[in-house]
Amino acid sequence: MTFIRQPTRAGVRDAAAKIAGVVPPTPLFVSQINSLAVAFKCECLQPMGAFKLRGAWHRLTAIDPEARGKGVVAFSSGNHAQGIAWAAKRLGMPALIVMPADAPESKRAGTLALGAEIVSYDRLSESRESIAAGLAEARGAVLVPSFDDPWVIEGQGSAGIEAAAQMEALGLGPVAQVVVPCGGGGLAAGIALALPEAGIMVVEPEGWDDMRRSLEAGWIEEVGPNPPKTACDALQTLRVSPLTFDVLARRDSRGVAVSEEEIRRAQRWAADKLRLVVEPGGAVALAALLAGKVEATAGTLVLLSGGNVDRVAYGRVLAGEN
Amino acid sequence: MTFIRQPTRAGVRDAAAKIAGVVPPTPLFVSQINSLAVAFKCECLQPMGAFKLRGAWHRLTAIDPEARGKGVVAFSSGNHAQGIAWAAKRLGMPALIVMPADAPESKRAGTLALGAEIVSYDRLSESRESIAAGLAEARGAVLVPSFDDPWVIEGQGSAGIEAAAQMEALGLGPVAQVVVPCGGGGLAAGIALALPEAGIMVVEPEGWDDMRRSLEAGWIEEVGPNPPKTACDALQTLRVSPLTFDVLARRDSRGVAVSEEEIRRAQRWAADKLRLVVEPGGAVALAALLAGKVEATAGTLVLLSGGNVDRVAYGRVLAGEN
Repeated sequence: MTFIRQPTRAGVRDAAAKIAGVVPPTPLFVSQINSLAVAFKCECLQPMGAFKLRGAWHRLTAIDPEARGKGVVAFSSGNHAQGIAWAAKRLGMPALIVMPADAPESKRAGTLALGAEIVSYDRLSESRESIAAGLAEARGAVLVPSFDDPWVIEGQGSAGIEAAAQMEALGLGPVAQVVVPCGGGGLAAGIALALPEAGIMVVEPEGWDDMRRSLEAGWIEEVGPNPPKTACDALQTLRVSPLTFDVLARRDSRGVAVSEEEIRRAQRWAADKLRLVVEPGGAVALAALLAGKVEATAGTLVLLSGGNVDRVAYGRVLAGEN
Repeated sequence: MTFIRQPTRAGVRDAAAKIAGVVPPTPLFVSQINSLAVAFKCECLQPMGAFKLRGAWHRLTAIDPEARGKGVVAFSSGNHAQGIAWAAKRLGMPALIVMPADAPESKRAGTLALGAEIVSYDRLSESRESIAAGLAEARGAVLVPSFDDPWVIEGQGSAGIEAAAQMEALGLGPVAQVVVPCGGGGLAAGIALALPEAGIMVVEPEGWDDMRRSLEAGWIEEVGPNPPKTACDALQTLRVSPLTFDVLARRDSRGVAVSEEEIRRAQRWAADKLRLVVEPGGAVALAALLAGKVEATAGTLVLLSGGNVDRVAYGRVLAGEN
């Protein structure tokens, strides 16, 4: 059923133009790390709190208006869910989201508030892909994966087009290096297409660094058995997609992994210096810079990709209590 | 020594033009309260975390370049301190700040990081005004009060000019009602000058609602003896100024007071819905709306005036622990 094509730079540009019609650019702030000006693209300030509405909008607007009535099905721990729900609501499409039972309550509530239905599944024992595929087939709805889809990748890449223009306007361009959180790699691959001259560094939580290992190996490697617990619910992807991997591999992208404590430190830094609420998965790129695992250089762009926190847990992180 | 003149709308426009040359407009976000779209002017996202750089910039740029070498002296619990330090650094002026000994550590650190010197005083037993005046005289420096100054008031008002343009661009204008945190009233008075057609509602913490009482009485009333503890370090002003009071009184502005629990609720709401770190004093206007003490109407603009929190205390508020 999936229309197989490669995501393209032209597609990213098209997505950026479409998205500019529905949401203003997210702010780009500049702050110093090791006395160097670093640019932060604040996707945590999107209306639904993450970059995911970009891919959702580009994908859903590509569906024939007559076919939209049967709706959309997606699987997601929460940010893609809210992105799809946001775009579907705007287009008057029914949306059904398959969500892990342990998704943060705030993401579940946010998805419901945007008018979507939710079906829960158990992250470890059930396959969200097959549940979602079955539901989509039964309804005649379009299944929109969270990253394994050319439109979704192109849509996410629009953040890179916006950020590059903002950095140029501030005299900080061109973008030399992009540091980007990576789950399935949709945002990273989209931005790689958007910024063909920039070095791409993807960042994952320790033990979930399958994209890093895949880029080193030259083929896709999965997350190992019994991966460690991580606060990064948005980055718990067991296997990346050939679509995202191929784009990143062709660009000689590299990856690093950050620890949970490094991620918490980044969340505290973002609250102190930028006054932004950033979720764990949204803070990993910043964490890599603060930990010295990625070196800040002139023209460095960091993606703060989401801000949908479990507020109580987040409060404890800020208070330094865990 | 003080040049006595009234702040004017022309002065606010002049300030807005000057400030546009040094910092981009802060974002204006829209969110629903009781199913009504409310606009939030996010001054917590200023580079130094509060609106105070506006008044500081307008005031310090009004000093003759030859006179700038002797520097500036200010007294402040932290946000005006950082605003003055930010503007002074940019103009190459030495800055000395008289700060209460119990100012939040983050504001103290932020002020030092911007290159200012700090002199501490005891909030209850010493007069910051006379300490600062003595230091300014000894140095031949310019003393810049935090609100009792026409340039400072005009500078703060530039936030209103920006917000009105942003609301018009979003189809949410004209501004019918502005809800604004009030300490000495500099921001509120500046915005009242900026927006001559809007209703002005000032918000203070309970027990510190001297502007509310003053507006009701028709003359300036001080905060009573032994005012209650408040988390709003930025709004602990014992007496407003004729400059700010007169502007607000002439506009039939009204005031409301909010409780500490209502303020904490607003801080949690801002983190959940806007992904913003807002300090207690910066959240009082939002608190008044959420508590139903101010009614949201079409064309409502709310000022989120600062985000310089004591992070540990703030984390506990988000976790719901106090």
